[in-house]
Amino acid sequence: MTQFNGRKSLIYLFLAVTCGAEMRALSAETAKLVAPGVWRIHLGQTEKFTPLHFQKLPPYEKGFESLPVIARSPLDSKEIQFEVSSRGCSIALPIGTNEAIYGLGLNTALFDMAQIGGKHTGRRVFLKPTDHPENDLGESHAPVPFYCSSEGYGVFVDTARFASFYTGNVVAKSAGAKKNERTMLVEIPAAKGVDVYVFAGPTPLDAVKRYNLFSGGGCVPPLWGLGLQYRGLGTFGAEESLNLAARMRADHLPCDVWGVEPGWQTKSYSCSFVWNTNRFPHPDEFIQKMHEMGLRLNFWQHAFVHPSSPMYQQLEPWSGNYLVWGGLVPDFATLSGKRIFLEQNRKVLFSLGVDAVKLDECDDQPDSATPWSFPEASLFPSGLDGEQMHSLFGVLYQRAMWEPYMEKGIRTWGLVRDSQALAAPLPYGIYSDSYDHRCYVRGLLNAGFSGLLWVPEVRDAVSIEDLYRRIETAVFSPDTVINCWYMKNPPWDQIDKDKSNRGEFMPNHEEVTAGVRRLLELRMSLVPYLYSAFNEYRQSGLPPIRALVLDWPADPKVREIDDQYMFGSALMVAPMFAGQSSRSVYLPKGTWYDFWTHAKYAGEQTITATNGAEEIPLFVKGGSLLPLAAPVECIGTNTDFDITVHGFGANPADIVLFEDDGVSSAFAKGVQNRIRLHGNQKSHSEERTGNYPSKRYRIVDWQWID
Amino acid sequence: MTQFNGRKSLIYLFLAVTCGAEMRALSAETAKLVAPGVWRIHLGQTEKFTPLHFQKLPPYEKGFESLPVIARSPLDSKEIQFEVSSRGCSIALPIGTNEAIYGLGLNTALFDMAQIGGKHTGRRVFLKPTDHPENDLGESHAPVPFYCSSEGYGVFVDTARFASFYTGNVVAKSAGAKKNERTMLVEIPAAKGVDVYVFAGPTPLDAVKRYNLFSGGGCVPPLWGLGLQYRGLGTFGAEESLNLAARMRADHLPCDVWGVEPGWQTKSYSCSFVWNTNRFPHPDEFIQKMHEMGLRLNFWQHAFVHPSSPMYQQLEPWSGNYLVWGGLVPDFATLSGKRIFLEQNRKVLFSLGVDAVKLDECDDQPDSATPWSFPEASLFPSGLDGEQMHSLFGVLYQRAMWEPYMEKGIRTWGLVRDSQALAAPLPYGIYSDSYDHRCYVRGLLNAGFSGLLWVPEVRDAVSIEDLYRRIETAVFSPDTVINCWYMKNPPWDQIDKDKSNRGEFMPNHEEVTAGVRRLLELRMSLVPYLYSAFNEYRQSGLPPIRALVLDWPADPKVREIDDQYMFGSALMVAPMFAGQSSRSVYLPKGTWYDFWTHAKYAGEQTITATNGAEEIPLFVKGGSLLPLAAPVECIGTNTDFDITVHGFGANPADIVLFEDDGVSSAFAKGVQNRIRLHGNQKSHSEERTGNYPSKRYRIVDWQWID
Repeated sequence: MTQFNGRKSLIYLFLAVTCGAEMRALSAETAKLVAPGVWRIHLGQTEKFTPLHFQKLPPYEKGFESLPVIARSPLDSKEIQFEVSSRGCSIALPIGTNEAIYGLGLNTALFDMAQIGGKHTGRRVFLKPTDHPENDLGESHAPVPFYCSSEGYGVFVDTARFASFYTGNVVAKSAGAKKNERTMLVEIPAAKGVDVYVFAGPTPLDAVKRYNLFSGGGCVPPLWGLGLQYRGLGTFGAEESLNLAARMRADHLPCDVWGVEPGWQTKSYSCSFVWNTNRFPHPDEFIQKMHEMGLRLNFWQHAFVHPSSPMYQQLEPWSGNYLVWGGLVPDFATLSGKRIFLEQNRKVLFSLGVDAVKLDECDDQPDSATPWSFPEASLFPSGLDGEQMHSLFGVLYQRAMWEPYMEKGIRTWGLVRDSQALAAPLPYGIYSDSYDHRCYVRGLLNAGFSGLLWVPEVRDAVSIEDLYRRIETAVFSPDTVINCWYMKNPPWDQIDKDKSNRGEFMPNHEEVTAGVRRLLELRMSLVPYLYSAFNEYRQSGLPPIRALVLDWPADPKVREIDDQYMFGSALMVAPMFAGQSSRSVYLPKGTWYDFWTHAKYAGEQTITATNGAEEIPLFVKGGSLLPLAAPVECIGTNTDFDITVHGFGANPADIVLFEDDGVSSAFAKGVQNRIRLHGNQKSHSEERTGNYPSKRYRIVDWQWID
Repeated sequence: MTQFNGRKSLIYLFLAVTCGAEMRALSAETAKLVAPGVWRIHLGQTEKFTPLHFQKLPPYEKGFESLPVIARSPLDSKEIQFEVSSRGCSIALPIGTNEAIYGLGLNTALFDMAQIGGKHTGRRVFLKPTDHPENDLGESHAPVPFYCSSEGYGVFVDTARFASFYTGNVVAKSAGAKKNERTMLVEIPAAKGVDVYVFAGPTPLDAVKRYNLFSGGGCVPPLWGLGLQYRGLGTFGAEESLNLAARMRADHLPCDVWGVEPGWQTKSYSCSFVWNTNRFPHPDEFIQKMHEMGLRLNFWQHAFVHPSSPMYQQLEPWSGNYLVWGGLVPDFATLSGKRIFLEQNRKVLFSLGVDAVKLDECDDQPDSATPWSFPEASLFPSGLDGEQMHSLFGVLYQRAMWEPYMEKGIRTWGLVRDSQALAAPLPYGIYSDSYDHRCYVRGLLNAGFSGLLWVPEVRDAVSIEDLYRRIETAVFSPDTVINCWYMKNPPWDQIDKDKSNRGEFMPNHEEVTAGVRRLLELRMSLVPYLYSAFNEYRQSGLPPIRALVLDWPADPKVREIDDQYMFGSALMVAPMFAGQSSRSVYLPKGTWYDFWTHAKYAGEQTITATNGAEEIPLFVKGGSLLPLAAPVECIGTNTDFDITVHGFGANPADIVLFEDDGVSSAFAKGVQNRIRLHGNQKSHSEERTGNYPSKRYRIVDWQWID
């Protein structure tokens, strides 16, 4: 990593009165500026295996140019107390009485991490990967030791340990009677030291941007990744998949990606990575036919390798010393482990043109009496122990499976069930077996604080209203996924799983299909807008989906809002849930327009949305240009977009669209266009710069709303 | 600790194929015989602070004489795999396909730890102290790293870490396809080594006995400790306590101990350790008056010291670096911390003749988002970290508060909410805020595997039947406690808490009082029998309360029975729960007599008990002599017992009664009598040996049942 000029600063050593002590006095080091507005504070003897150790990408340095220059670390290293004990180490940082803390991974049950029961009394956030994310303990599908504060700074603790963050609920003896002082205590087991990275603001959003840029910048999915992903029944073979896909095409339901679940393998749980030729007699033909229908393919797998797999013997020395479901646990932190695993995957998947993968079961079950995954005491040939591997397994697996695409110079867009720190550049959305719609929405917001993307997938539904509401949220998410792995037919044919599997269609299935089609077409109309938001994610670290507190940090009313979010620069989404006939929507400072009615609202007020089941409450920020495309059914390499630009308010700000081939990584080498849209009711213009040779976006109309 | 002749044995070192490894090769040591039938296997670099480090008592060597001599360790050290990683270390021991594993502390929700859903597929048992014991994770009020196996051996892992025991549900890669091999994996965080102690059988009970003797032998409560303990409302002052005690005396309800809850202090949560003179204007007079009524006093406290406490300033340097409820956490592992804490307690409690203490809140909340106790990252002046202190806090606190009594040469009999390893000699019963009667019964059985005593206390009740059933279980427990800390009046006046506090009595309260009196009199009739069972606990390690599997190890039908237990040598208890009109009772091999009807049953059959609410199903083992005393209301230093010996079956085995002053520790120096009762329908005898000068037990009658 590039080293910027360092700032000298001494670490304050907290030397408690000890007696027969195991505590150690520690060598202090000066804090170092490692990227613009990013300081590293080195504490004690750091561990070798940390998230940063495995980070292959350098910070996206160009991105920092758009951020304010900050000369001093927002956290003085003198304010940090560091202690080492026989069980690990701890860091105590000061936090204010009403400071809100966001992030720490993909929590779906928590939002402001310093808050409990409406009070800022703090809580323990325990960073463990789990397949049961709807807990209040801090465990999640993506525990990330990074938080951003309402006070406009961020902190990343570079550890692969199951760290606990106490966000103000413990009181150090040294704080004594000073009741208002609060401590952010970070407990790190096993380690005798750690590097802490402090990210300057001045706003919380700036801190998040710096974290994302430090991670390498946000990912840019292929264009096709922004269309619908439909995943068929787990036992579908080639024929059933082709038939259903053809039926969806006939129904003109937009669809870009077809997901194939476990049944493609001879063995799953654990996995053989061998084609089940009963279900798929000619895999290459199947893939070709699906591609011809304009469908990209995403294949399910988990990493645990069944004894019948051809790679088993070779992989054996490069796997952990405990089995999972009788299968080897590949050590992706070793070159050989990764190579052997990828070789078999190349043979059966990548060489056949599979476009993406879904990486299942890479989390854990910390609160179970019978956890299915490898124990924390596991040892791996790389030297990682089980705890570290659990904290890194998701990212190592993602990086490994991304490699074949990078080598070919093409993009992919996968799914994964576990991620961790520094994951912003990884082209994967995180999904869950859980299915609470309210928690799904919270996950969307929280992902944005931690460099993650969250996929609130749709399966069955308790009512047609529930189906619409869930699809609406999926439309306004990074990846719109309908996952029918346990259903024969799509939910618009039948919302009930059992009836679906018996082939019973709902009497009004055609009407519901039409409703769902309209929702999916809304998604397709947003593709150029969302694609540009992703490019912004890469360029400046701005998350495409954000909690309101990131855009309005000075408004105390948005600090605890966890059910409204920004989608790109111009749209605010306020999802509704089945059973709600209305909901409150807070409009932050500025002017707002109802997307559907164009009704105009002054900001800084709470209004009531009463949108019916087929219409998600959606608001356009006044002063925005919103490009909406004529919806297409799928996005091929030659698909162009007819765009109508909608201007909201008297003098909308410019918006820049990102244009490229949509599939290759050439854009990263500059083969791209920027289309600056500028205008108001009196005049408008589009200015295309760049060296991508084609025009995929055609601005066909401008409309003005005020 | 006395070192016996060592046996040489090499530790097999599992050297996994590593690459850039953090794993270390380890120095092996020979296994050592450290007590008869007890071997130590030293693995790696052990930690300083372990349960054994703080064990002040040597093994009770004399007790081993009654056990079979075993020449070889039941676990060959070659069978143990030991691995060290950067996060700690792990031990893998072989277990059999159907091996049952008991112990691992005071679990109330689990029994056979290798079993889940009726199958021996194993589970993870996570040894963390918790105030929410009714979980299936292995957390409990007393996590103990000792287990005994149905195969007739025991294993103690000498660690104060939050260890996980995987009882067969993880599969090592090295086990490969050998499906029937199972592994007991013990994960120990932080430590780079550990001592493992193996306890020979040949039976599971022998292994438990060896563990208890190794711990120093079981405790012997004072005689008064075996009577009823009644705890009054938390805010009771001297007057209310005296009045209610007088009323209980007038009602002839047996009662030996009066519990005073938090209200005696000026501050609680945290605690001031200063008398609240509004409630107790003359503490010494209060204590004297209660003593005059024949009541011993037990005072509540927790260890966290409020800033207003006179000891605060002095204790400050000898406490942990985090506060609990704004109070200091004394470091009982330092001489100064213990001394300062005891000085204040001497001043306000011990010097006034307080007979016992109740030590609250010394556990933790591992699964809470807002744990109230000190964080694991805490540091203590002794050098202990927070994790170690959590694992040891209960035992260190118990030992500290026992000292003033030992110095005076008198016994005490306290209550505590957390305990751990090697606790058999500690004169405390463990209680809980939880209140599930079924779990309470399981706790009684489990305590017996781990050198613990469990107190299934009675508070309010949902019905009069529930009250009777709960008191019945309390009668057949180490300490019969009615804890009315949230109720103004005893539950026999009113089972409903709110009505109790409004002073409303049940219409039939006199009838219920009479019923409860009969149950308490049953307890009092068992005092000499139970006292002798406790002496046996000390002498041979035989737990006074035992799961059936300990007495009938060869009978597969008793292996999973967790709702019947032996109480002393002759009685088998089968508690019933509110709502049950009948229950199954398994009678093991032998002949059995219904305690109430004297009906005779052949063993190895399951019968149905239909005892009404006021009668607990109770069975006498054929061939037993059961001494029953005329019940007294309380046990003073001069109280004698008129005993009728009931002989069951043709040729009952002898029984030995233990007789002494009942209060001092002189018995341990030999000032005691043994009264051997011998006889059958034709002739009988009592043979008193020893040098205690008085006769407290008078055998007034012999009765024969066949």
